Amino acid sequence: MKLQVSLDRVGLSEALELASMIGDIADIIEAGTPAIHKEGMAIVRAIRSACPAAAILADLKIVDGGDYAASMAFEAGADIVTVAGFSSNETIRSVACAAKRYGKEVMVDLIHVPDIASRAAELDSYGVDYMCVHTGFDGRKPAAAPPLRELRILNRAARKARSAIASGIGLDTLLPVMRENPHVIIVGSGIVNADNVREAALAFKRHLSERKDLRQR
Amino acid sequence: MKLQVSLDRVGLSEALELASMIGDIADIIEAGTPAIHKEGMAIVRAIRSACPAAAILADLKIVDGGDYAASMAFEAGADIVTVAGFSSNETIRSVACAAKRYGKEVMVDLIHVPDIASRAAELDSYGVDYMCVHTGFDGRKPAAAPPLRELRILNRAARKARSAIASGIGLDTLLPVMRENPHVIIVGSGIVNADNVREAALAFKRHLSERKDLRQR
Repeated sequence: MKLQVSLDRVGLSEALELASMIGDIADIIEAGTPAIHKEGMAIVRAIRSACPAAAILADLKIVDGGDYAASMAFEAGADIVTVAGFSSNETIRSVACAAKRYGKEVMVDLIHVPDIASRAAELDSYGVDYMCVHTGFDGRKPAAAPPLRELRILNRAARKARSAIASGIGLDTLLPVMRENPHVIIVGSGIVNADNVREAALAFKRHLSERKDLRQR
Repeated sequence: MKLQVSLDRVGLSEALELASMIGDIADIIEAGTPAIHKEGMAIVRAIRSACPAAAILADLKIVDGGDYAASMAFEAGADIVTVAGFSSNETIRSVACAAKRYGKEVMVDLIHVPDIASRAAELDSYGVDYMCVHTGFDGRKPAAAPPLRELRILNRAARKARSAIASGIGLDTLLPVMRENPHVIIVGSGIVNADNVREAALAFKRHLSERKDLRQR
């Protein structure tokens, strides 16, 4: 299981600071949608400069113009780009094609997709590398649980693409998430809002490395 | 009828150049999604500096985190921000609330919304200012026509929100669009890719001002 840390509501300097704190711990560092809206591709280049060896995900949530948007992210240094699952099939295919051309990867964000089982099964044949279940921030209750039911549905529907999960994942909600065995676990405020960011990232990483023990319980 | 000109696949310097060429002609200048992905809010600030008096639309196509994203765009100088019509109702309401708080406006982009009639009728009660029919670039045939059927559906469904139309609008396809009487006509490549950008914008503007004559034909 991989740990992805999302840098969401940050500008350039905060992203640089956070990336240098967790760059050797996170498997994937995410340039979040709000950070991209704020700073553009400079945020991807900043994370790349702080962590030359890290895998970087650009959370563009592409909705249209897939080839152009994905190429822009890959040129800026991203290794993975996201496309919205409710986009047209043409958009998702064009993002997947761009990823192949660059030797990079694509993650489909299933936010706002009403029927995950059928959409995930359909997209699984498009050559996407990851699909992510994700509860929207705006629809979330204060103490919302991670979308475990959706993760189970996704894990059943996707045969080729690997699964990812975001929303509401903290150290206190990690164990049931791990039991569903997603490929990528995405943590935002549980790490970047912690008193000690580096310690929090290490704690998540430690738990993930103990995966086998946990699953046997 | 208002003329909105979208600046899509441009960086800061090209946006500045285009904005100064059409700033006194366009009713609304759009910072397009790809330009925002590339440059972040700097693109909105650049257009604002080139055209202090223009109405600027930031095409964020917000999908989540509506209040934060919309506030960021308004703080950067935008007058209108877009939210995706397939977003959650909570997201659309939070964008509409942010717009009210700033005394600004919101446009819902109906791209990828399968049932425009029912979604537009639903969103009409949310206090959104505009709804826009929009055919995705990736799904478009080379000589795709503007989405007139969708515009008719939207015009019937929306009682409070004003309608807008994007995709495939050139001088050669303008007349049938104008006959449907949308509030905003959005033109991209038909102006920014013209040999003479200013002349092209003026030609569109001239046609729009002849609206009454055209509708009587």
